Amino acid sequence: MPQTDSRIQLPEPTLRRLPWYLSYVSMLRSSGVEYVSSTLIARELDVDASQIAKDLSFLNIKGKTRIGYDVASLEQVLEDFLGFKKGHNAVIAGVGSLGSALMADSGLQRYGLNIVAGFDVNKQIIGQKIANVPVFDMSQLADVRREYAAEIGILTVPVEVAQEVCDMMVGAGFKALWNFTPIRIRTAGDIVVSNTSIYAHLALMYNRLTHHGQ
Amino acid sequence: MPQTDSRIQLPEPTLRRLPWYLSYVSMLRSSGVEYVSSTLIARELDVDASQIAKDLSFLNIKGKTRIGYDVASLEQVLEDFLGFKKGHNAVIAGVGSLGSALMADSGLQRYGLNIVAGFDVNKQIIGQKIANVPVFDMSQLADVRREYAAEIGILTVPVEVAQEVCDMMVGAGFKALWNFTPIRIRTAGDIVVSNTSIYAHLALMYNRLTHHGQ
Repeated sequence: MPQTDSRIQLPEPTLRRLPWYLSYVSMLRSSGVEYVSSTLIARELDVDASQIAKDLSFLNIKGKTRIGYDVASLEQVLEDFLGFKKGHNAVIAGVGSLGSALMADSGLQRYGLNIVAGFDVNKQIIGQKIANVPVFDMSQLADVRREYAAEIGILTVPVEVAQEVCDMMVGAGFKALWNFTPIRIRTAGDIVVSNTSIYAHLALMYNRLTHHGQ
Repeated sequence: MPQTDSRIQLPEPTLRRLPWYLSYVSMLRSSGVEYVSSTLIARELDVDASQIAKDLSFLNIKGKTRIGYDVASLEQVLEDFLGFKKGHNAVIAGVGSLGSALMADSGLQRYGLNIVAGFDVNKQIIGQKIANVPVFDMSQLADVRREYAAEIGILTVPVEVAQEVCDMMVGAGFKALWNFTPIRIRTAGDIVVSNTSIYAHLALMYNRLTHHGQ
């Protein structure tokens, strides 16, 4: 199997496309397909074939002429490279509807994310378990982070306290923040911030719908 | 209050920033602030002040010199423009962990999305209610869509069937698809597709973490 160097920092657009390729080749593998050409991937995913070849070249895997890529190794290389095989411990701040929803989403685990603890200010749920994940008081953030060696903090708190909790997480030693709140959070330079603005995507969709057929 | 024309099609980057402004001015309003300058918004959200003025000019709301924007009307204009005030009926296909999670997320309703029905192939949950939302058999997709005049279809099905269910939804008359599956779905030109690739965001975060401090 080809070696890949997961320490290569890829262009973000490439990183956004790789999971599409992974999903597709996983489907092919489970249906018993052995080889796939970038042309076929291109047709199925509506991405330019040369772009696909360029993206995959970062992973240092080459397709065979007239045969294409070996599906099984392409799947493995993509999974390894994307970090979905390696477990990443994360905690979640804000065990409200979205927070407990994510704690219950087994899909995240399949993609290498282990939510090991939840944090909230609501005395009713502190000490309880949600989807088998214990909920702690916010004051225990640093201790619990150390205990589980969790690097990722997920933000699903009310927007009013998002920045404050973000600062607490940075103070507690988290290296990456996954922000689900609709607000832009500010961090010191060295923290990885990933925004999943579910509600912003809604606004986009509403706006496009308004123009639908115009 | 200034008139806005929500039929203006904005540049996507602007549409992605507007919800940040809304979250921020809502906070200001609830804490009793009456006016805000683009300079302050810029500092708080780390967006260029001239960019903010440009974004807000699309909404045809002007700040007063030396006073800034009226917080209450800015909030209202943003909410109206983003479509968060108007109810949009949606159904969800795939009542698994993420699907039922979204059905239970009251946040979506606050942003104008009413999930009126769920669809699945699992006979165990068809006929049941999850978070008060009835779950139907996939075969009832078109009828239920008509009954509720639902325009938005949410895809949280397993990736293997994502394209197939996407085609069923288009066939059933949905005008917009919100795709949470990690696969790129293909639709006829006239359908609005919004992708929320939660798992792709994970890959990005893992990759950035690997480079953390390098």
